[in-house]
Amino acid sequence: MQARVEAALERALPAAGHLPARLHEAMRYAVLGGGKRVRPLLVFAAGEATAADAARLDIAACAVELIHAYSLVHDDLPCMDDDVLRRGKPTVHVEYDEATALLVGDALQSAAFELLAGTPAARDAATQLEMVRTLALAAGSRGMAGGQAIDLASVGRALTLPELELMHIHKTGALIRAAVRLGALAGEPLAPERFERLDRYAKCVGLAFQVVDDVLDAEASTATLGKTAGKDAAQGKPTYVSTLGRERAKALAGELRREAHAALEGLGAAAGRLAGLADFIVLRKF
Amino acid sequence: MQARVEAALERALPAAGHLPARLHEAMRYAVLGGGKRVRPLLVFAAGEATAADAARLDIAACAVELIHAYSLVHDDLPCMDDDVLRRGKPTVHVEYDEATALLVGDALQSAAFELLAGTPAARDAATQLEMVRTLALAAGSRGMAGGQAIDLASVGRALTLPELELMHIHKTGALIRAAVRLGALAGEPLAPERFERLDRYAKCVGLAFQVVDDVLDAEASTATLGKTAGKDAAQGKPTYVSTLGRERAKALAGELRREAHAALEGLGAAAGRLAGLADFIVLRKF
Repeated sequence: MQARVEAALERALPAAGHLPARLHEAMRYAVLGGGKRVRPLLVFAAGEATAADAARLDIAACAVELIHAYSLVHDDLPCMDDDVLRRGKPTVHVEYDEATALLVGDALQSAAFELLAGTPAARDAATQLEMVRTLALAAGSRGMAGGQAIDLASVGRALTLPELELMHIHKTGALIRAAVRLGALAGEPLAPERFERLDRYAKCVGLAFQVVDDVLDAEASTATLGKTAGKDAAQGKPTYVSTLGRERAKALAGELRREAHAALEGLGAAAGRLAGLADFIVLRKF
Repeated sequence: MQARVEAALERALPAAGHLPARLHEAMRYAVLGGGKRVRPLLVFAAGEATAADAARLDIAACAVELIHAYSLVHDDLPCMDDDVLRRGKPTVHVEYDEATALLVGDALQSAAFELLAGTPAARDAATQLEMVRTLALAAGSRGMAGGQAIDLASVGRALTLPELELMHIHKTGALIRAAVRLGALAGEPLAPERFERLDRYAKCVGLAFQVVDDVLDAEASTATLGKTAGKDAAQGKPTYVSTLGRERAKALAGELRREAHAALEGLGAAAGRLAGLADFIVLRKF
């Protein structure tokens, strides 16, 4: 499945030789050849639950991943996390330069919406518009970008658990929820109760993803992570580990995994892939 | 008309008190209370040519202006033009900080697509999707962001006139063309030949806008411009004035104005506002 996503992303991006060549080369550098592709996997798994066409899911999966990739490029910039390593490679502003990294992020965001609005991705145009709106809302100031702003404001402060949760519901959770929604919207219409179950699953998985990330950041080495380890602690950023301690953070991840499974009850065999992804996200070791 | 645009932008942006408050306050700072609103005016003028509903045009006009506003915030950042003054006020990274300015730009881009996909803006969903695609294409690596990349690569070089034109067709022209297209798409279907005429008009006006900007940048003072004057020359950026000389640049602006008027021939009285805007853009003195 990751290979399918990689091929779809490769097709979705402008060719490296297309002018302006340096920008397009840097966009491809930022997106291709790395990453766990968790959000695209969630799009495909949710699409399975609504019997969505695979070609439509390629579009939704790529759009979500382009937004995610843009956020990483901007997040690594000197004025943000100032990081030099991502997916085992130099970050975009290190490999190219800061101005190019800024434009790469900007252009990847546009590319996500161009793709999602310009290629058949749902059963009708109204549903596809709803997909665009969902993605934009998740990316913007009341979603991911808003989470980054809360993150900035929290550096050097000890957050309470609800405050930490609010930050991550925006910063990571919004786009993960959007991935599940987009996958579901790409298929057959879903009863509101079932759609709501998928959404509850996505909320749990989004939080679990962040909790596990924090545990891995505290435990793993830079080599196995492919990004700078121990960064959060060094920058005085509150994490689930600094707020709860390592053992309680691990217990929370397990609890969120169980809640995610519970949310899928009654959705039948079609939700099997979503259940497997919840396990993958919580049990991953890299 | 500017007051109408201002009110629509005010409604389109999240309230300043909405969390995260500092980000939303900074987004409003970046967008409201200034600017000539040339792109929204073009949306409304093109919409008049297709008898478009004013409420729909508000949406399209705001979406285009939010993209423009985001580009200014990022363009002013230290790693780009490093400017401290915009519309007579401190730039966003000076008034707030660099990380906030980065997020403001990112979130304004998302807000543009959220608005354009989430509010009725065309006669049917398929046309509205086409509007989203048009705006995303104009903003991205083969439009505005691509033009910025060409601009970066051109600093300190003498460009030929075709090279300079290529840069501006992307950097300013793409979004101006999108403004005219979106205005037209918001209304009644247009015969391809008439749509093509509007597009030719938009190309001429887009280039004329940049030529006049370059002349004003060379002639005006910082106080009358509301942004740092003489900046292009100081940064070694090629302009129409540095490439052609001031007189030939002025003559070119006049010629583009005539071409813009010629493109409107046959569109009748409904194109009157577009003709007036071509005059405004070329003859403006601030």
